[in-house]
Amino acid sequence: MNQDYIIPNNWSIIEEGFDTSQVKSSESLFSIGNGAMGQRANFEEKYSGDTFQGSYIAGVYYPDKTRVGWWKNGYPEYFAKVLNAPNWIGINVSINGEPLDLNTCKTVEGFKRELNMKEGWLSRHFIATLPNNVQVEVSVKRFLSLDLDEVGAIHYQVKPLNTDAEIEFQPYLDSGITNEDSNWDDQFWDTTNISFEDDQAFIESKTMKTDFHTCTFMESIVFSSGDPIFSAPQVKKESNYIALSYVNQIKKGETYSIQKFGGYTVDRNHDKTKLVDAAKEVLITAITKGFDQLLEDQKQAWANIWEMADITIEGDTKAQQGIRFNIFQLNQTYLGKDSRLNIGPKGFTGEKYGGSTYWDTEAYCIPFYMATKDQNVARALLEYRYNHLEKAIENAEKLGFKNGAALYPMVTMNGEECHNEWEITFEEIHRNGAIAFAIYNYHRYTGDYSYIPEKGLEVLIAIARFWHQRANFSTDKNKYVILGVTGPNEYENNINNNWYTNYLAKWCINYAIENINKVAAEYATDYTKIMNKIKLSEAEIKEWKAVADNMYFPYSEKHQVYLQQDGFLDKELITVANLPKSERPINQKWSWDRILRSPYIKQADVLQGFYFFEDRFTEEELEQHFDFYEPFTVHESSLSPCVHSIQAAKLNRMDQAYTFYLRTSRLDLDDYNHEVHEGLHITSMAGTWMSIVEGFGGMRIIDNKLSFTPKIPKQWEAYSFKINFRNQIIKINVSQQQLNFELLTGNDLEILVNNKPVVLKNKILKSVS
Amino acid sequence: MNQDYIIPNNWSIIEEGFDTSQVKSSESLFSIGNGAMGQRANFEEKYSGDTFQGSYIAGVYYPDKTRVGWWKNGYPEYFAKVLNAPNWIGINVSINGEPLDLNTCKTVEGFKRELNMKEGWLSRHFIATLPNNVQVEVSVKRFLSLDLDEVGAIHYQVKPLNTDAEIEFQPYLDSGITNEDSNWDDQFWDTTNISFEDDQAFIESKTMKTDFHTCTFMESIVFSSGDPIFSAPQVKKESNYIALSYVNQIKKGETYSIQKFGGYTVDRNHDKTKLVDAAKEVLITAITKGFDQLLEDQKQAWANIWEMADITIEGDTKAQQGIRFNIFQLNQTYLGKDSRLNIGPKGFTGEKYGGSTYWDTEAYCIPFYMATKDQNVARALLEYRYNHLEKAIENAEKLGFKNGAALYPMVTMNGEECHNEWEITFEEIHRNGAIAFAIYNYHRYTGDYSYIPEKGLEVLIAIARFWHQRANFSTDKNKYVILGVTGPNEYENNINNNWYTNYLAKWCINYAIENINKVAAEYATDYTKIMNKIKLSEAEIKEWKAVADNMYFPYSEKHQVYLQQDGFLDKELITVANLPKSERPINQKWSWDRILRSPYIKQADVLQGFYFFEDRFTEEELEQHFDFYEPFTVHESSLSPCVHSIQAAKLNRMDQAYTFYLRTSRLDLDDYNHEVHEGLHITSMAGTWMSIVEGFGGMRIIDNKLSFTPKIPKQWEAYSFKINFRNQIIKINVSQQQLNFELLTGNDLEILVNNKPVVLKNKILKSVS
Repeated sequence: MNQDYIIPNNWSIIEEGFDTSQVKSSESLFSIGNGAMGQRANFEEKYSGDTFQGSYIAGVYYPDKTRVGWWKNGYPEYFAKVLNAPNWIGINVSINGEPLDLNTCKTVEGFKRELNMKEGWLSRHFIATLPNNVQVEVSVKRFLSLDLDEVGAIHYQVKPLNTDAEIEFQPYLDSGITNEDSNWDDQFWDTTNISFEDDQAFIESKTMKTDFHTCTFMESIVFSSGDPIFSAPQVKKESNYIALSYVNQIKKGETYSIQKFGGYTVDRNHDKTKLVDAAKEVLITAITKGFDQLLEDQKQAWANIWEMADITIEGDTKAQQGIRFNIFQLNQTYLGKDSRLNIGPKGFTGEKYGGSTYWDTEAYCIPFYMATKDQNVARALLEYRYNHLEKAIENAEKLGFKNGAALYPMVTMNGEECHNEWEITFEEIHRNGAIAFAIYNYHRYTGDYSYIPEKGLEVLIAIARFWHQRANFSTDKNKYVILGVTGPNEYENNINNNWYTNYLAKWCINYAIENINKVAAEYATDYTKIMNKIKLSEAEIKEWKAVADNMYFPYSEKHQVYLQQDGFLDKELITVANLPKSERPINQKWSWDRILRSPYIKQADVLQGFYFFEDRFTEEELEQHFDFYEPFTVHESSLSPCVHSIQAAKLNRMDQAYTFYLRTSRLDLDDYNHEVHEGLHITSMAGTWMSIVEGFGGMRIIDNKLSFTPKIPKQWEAYSFKINFRNQIIKINVSQQQLNFELLTGNDLEILVNNKPVVLKNKILKSVS
Repeated sequence: MNQDYIIPNNWSIIEEGFDTSQVKSSESLFSIGNGAMGQRANFEEKYSGDTFQGSYIAGVYYPDKTRVGWWKNGYPEYFAKVLNAPNWIGINVSINGEPLDLNTCKTVEGFKRELNMKEGWLSRHFIATLPNNVQVEVSVKRFLSLDLDEVGAIHYQVKPLNTDAEIEFQPYLDSGITNEDSNWDDQFWDTTNISFEDDQAFIESKTMKTDFHTCTFMESIVFSSGDPIFSAPQVKKESNYIALSYVNQIKKGETYSIQKFGGYTVDRNHDKTKLVDAAKEVLITAITKGFDQLLEDQKQAWANIWEMADITIEGDTKAQQGIRFNIFQLNQTYLGKDSRLNIGPKGFTGEKYGGSTYWDTEAYCIPFYMATKDQNVARALLEYRYNHLEKAIENAEKLGFKNGAALYPMVTMNGEECHNEWEITFEEIHRNGAIAFAIYNYHRYTGDYSYIPEKGLEVLIAIARFWHQRANFSTDKNKYVILGVTGPNEYENNINNNWYTNYLAKWCINYAIENINKVAAEYATDYTKIMNKIKLSEAEIKEWKAVADNMYFPYSEKHQVYLQQDGFLDKELITVANLPKSERPINQKWSWDRILRSPYIKQADVLQGFYFFEDRFTEEELEQHFDFYEPFTVHESSLSPCVHSIQAAKLNRMDQAYTFYLRTSRLDLDDYNHEVHEGLHITSMAGTWMSIVEGFGGMRIIDNKLSFTPKIPKQWEAYSFKINFRNQIIKINVSQQQLNFELLTGNDLEILVNNKPVVLKNKILKSVS
């Protein structure tokens, strides 16, 4: 944990002072993205110190050859990797022939980095003394355009302070990049052509195996004291590299600057033979607008996002900074414009967890996107899974399932499984439940049932078939059991009767049957189409029902709790509070077997079920389970604190809820888990949003009605957020003194506040209590 | 399975006809070894077809960089690999400039390969027509000397049948070899010097990282029609290779032959700077004796081994061939001459299972060596573990144990763990029990208690400490439990309360305490020495005792059996008989998760415990458990059929016992598991021996007395074996008609036959029944 590193600020992430040991962490924290591409906050100029270079294009991945110690049948042959794409931001700078490199400078003063979240740009400022004693002041501003999402812009300014100097800018493109995360150190990119024309340069390259074609491009303009200089650059071309060199004599105190425009065109959006043409087109648009106008557009685009998505917190700058950082990064990662894309756990900020899509999307991200965007965004995320249904059925077949049963992959880029740890890949099957739950949740929130007859029902049936086949009848228990699973708590492997998994299985079957009946009754055409396709008989449904009706749930009479799994009470039940600090985090300090046999829980497991199906349990039951499990929970998953924050708030334990809130919202900013250098925890950021909206705000959907039971931590003066509920925008303000609801669009709306009906009039401020 | 491939023969393994698809399997089956080195039956001449080249030197291994998909804390950094050593057997042969290569010959007729187990040599004969239409008859004989265990000899004869021909022999040494089993395709050998002198050549090389220095050497003599030809060979030298070329014009029908002597000198036995000198010395000895005399010595040496170790079976050639093959391979692998060595699961016949020593040694091999060799051989095997005690303590410390608790490695070359699958490495802890059991078994069989005060007790205490710490108290069960283990049945992972493991744990603690008391009472000096070293208090022993006395054992009242683990009865209990053949072996047909949640058992687990501790259970209990578990057992471990054969014999189920016997004794010869190309299953061969001696012979040690309850399968006319019991040799003959015991050495000996005392008089034939 590193609490004092990022300077608290309502709208910006700020770092002051240059610390080489923080470079990789800052590269993660100051990452920028626009949904179509993103990059770590690597320096434009050369940096010879420890750095993790990363620039990523949405949907461009590589099927790295699998690496395992001992092969198990069923493992996929490859592991899809988020792929470091060619570098377009690079600008080598030299002063009197000496490269500017913060790692070798004699002094670096006034170093300040700012990620302005309100306006969507990254800046850097410093005064450096080079080994040749020239002192320069450098200011850089960079952003990735939301409007023109193939392009980014950099304004790089250098002012020699103590002497006149010859300054060279050498903007370059480089496709000779490597991946941090590579199993066999293979080359992932094949450069097919390098070309240039005046101030423009292009590298065409394609990924090996997956054959994603891209064009990485750039065009630059240089300025002396603000006036553009037109002179043909020198060209340096290598097999994977092209640089254009702009050299000028600059007087002491004057500014030499370069504006570089660059980015990627990709064959997901263009004909692969016309990527250079597309690049030229976007460059003309960008250059015609110019850096300043693009930046103005950027501010406006972000203002539009914030208009809907912002959460304000008064009286607690760190909390405010935390939630905005989370909302900002989610929007940098995924904007819902393309249903072929999804939300990777590290977004565009790192490579870990190789694939793009986990159950995180369904369990954590969809609620955020449902409430802060048009409902089509959430629907696109559901369709992503519908489009992968066939591959999920193939995946299940590989593991011995049949008759159209689907097991969605744990990690995927294209619908195929690309993870291989048997205890996760084969056993962490609860993910199937989250995919069904998301369909339910989408319908519950948006009221849009049409998705289910059109697409969702096929998914629900395939998932129900899986659970039916995956359970087996225990003559010993006279119940159906589900053996050999890993629950959300990955600190247990190959366990029997994980309560969460069994509960989801039963729910999935029942929910599928409920919707089969509803579609049969109300959407005859869709029903016939589906039944013709999937051959479902009454007899089969009856078999499913037998499983659901006779599912076993481990329960302790003594503790009056559902047990996380069979045998949980055999553990040595020492709470986390009694665990020496020196032994935490246990995933770094303990061997795996010790973790497994300990009672320590990585993240909400039984409580995750209570979160999903809250309306089926009493508050007393929640309290009972929270009190039993939380003391054993180490929260070493980024997905843990948010759920606990929501539940603590529900139980009126506001101090605990607040602590969990800070942990989830500042997980990366304060580097709780000592791993921010690897990238940010993007998907759990949606959990942070939930912990305010659902936790403190108490937002629920009850019988098609929005419901709130707002609370406020004592550390805050007030907070506010907006919700898009079925195309109506509602703004909620909660302060220590009062509670205000504002209906910003549409007709009067009846909601529940603290379980009492309240009618919101359009644009009329409602004050309750 | 491939039942008709090896020709049944009492004393030889014979293959007739050349089948390229069988080459790799035959390379395994016809492997030769002499305890110090061994090699697959690769051809001397070039072979361009599919082959698995392997020549191995005892104790020479390589710490290959670990490869895992996802790193777990506690994994070792490296994985020790059995190392393919430089090739010394190679003899390139060319006829009129055309290389002899069975893969390219126009025809190969009369191909016969024989591994003569009685005399310890390998021969090959064939008539081949080369692409240039020259037809040659080739005869080759090769052996690795038991007496001079650094040297092997080859006699390679070529006769042109249809024309005169220029024949070239090019014997060579090659250190540019690779390993089949390599994680990162690293180079394992570093060639430091190549030299030659007249007909001798030497390659000095050392292993990377481990720095084992070796000299690979050769010297050859060529003959025309039996007469030696002396002429200086041409030398061809490359960076990792040296060949000497002998060319002669040979008349049609005459024989050109070469005798090649070669092998390894290693720095385990010589000063590393004097390996060439040592090689010269052994070459002089070998050449002076000559091929024929060396072969005579070889026959004698093997006769001496067979004199003690042979088991005869009359009336069943396949069974006879099977047991001799097993005994032969065990003696090729380990002769007990060097306590720094141990018995690898594949011996010198392949590379799989990377390391050298598994629990197989203690559980399966020691009984064989105790009864067929001097007891010092078994003691050397025990000492091997004593010498590794410190590393076993370090290994336990890495996993969080303390206070001198030892966890012996699952796989080791030098005492360090070199396996990394968490479910095995960290969880298959029952291996610790086998190491303690071997001490008990050694004392029980040999009567030699001295090992315990001298060395064994320290091992027993360290192991007891491990079990004490590894168990935890379950308040739910009010018993001690052992969570998160893998039992001998590796088709279950991370299970709770594996009966076998819990039973061994309890037994280990009690046995340690019993011996602490005995050593305290009877070996005061040793006791004081040990106690000073390991600081063991009465209080600590009391804590151990509490664990042993209150150990939990899963039991089913309904089935009246101990359960293999908690929750076993939740499985879908479909017997193997009801499993379609197309789905077996399940380890090749099913995904891992499906195997894990199935009831199918890889090898004896509860029954392994009943085997070890037979005297603590009634025959009814054995029958109950056998009948419960065997139907779920797929015997996909080589270590399974032998235990079942012994128990079936005990239960008078002779047909079943016989089937299991064939399966264990001909596992490789008939290639039951479709994997003999990878190498032989050496350690399970000791289990084959046990299935005759302990199974059919019913040999036990009861209260310091040898006891027999002999039975005979109806397929056999008679069988016989010898036993070295406490330096007395007893020969047992069992026929369908009678039962004979012969005491070949020492004083009169009282034994039990069918539970009745019988006194054997020296060399007097006893006839019972």
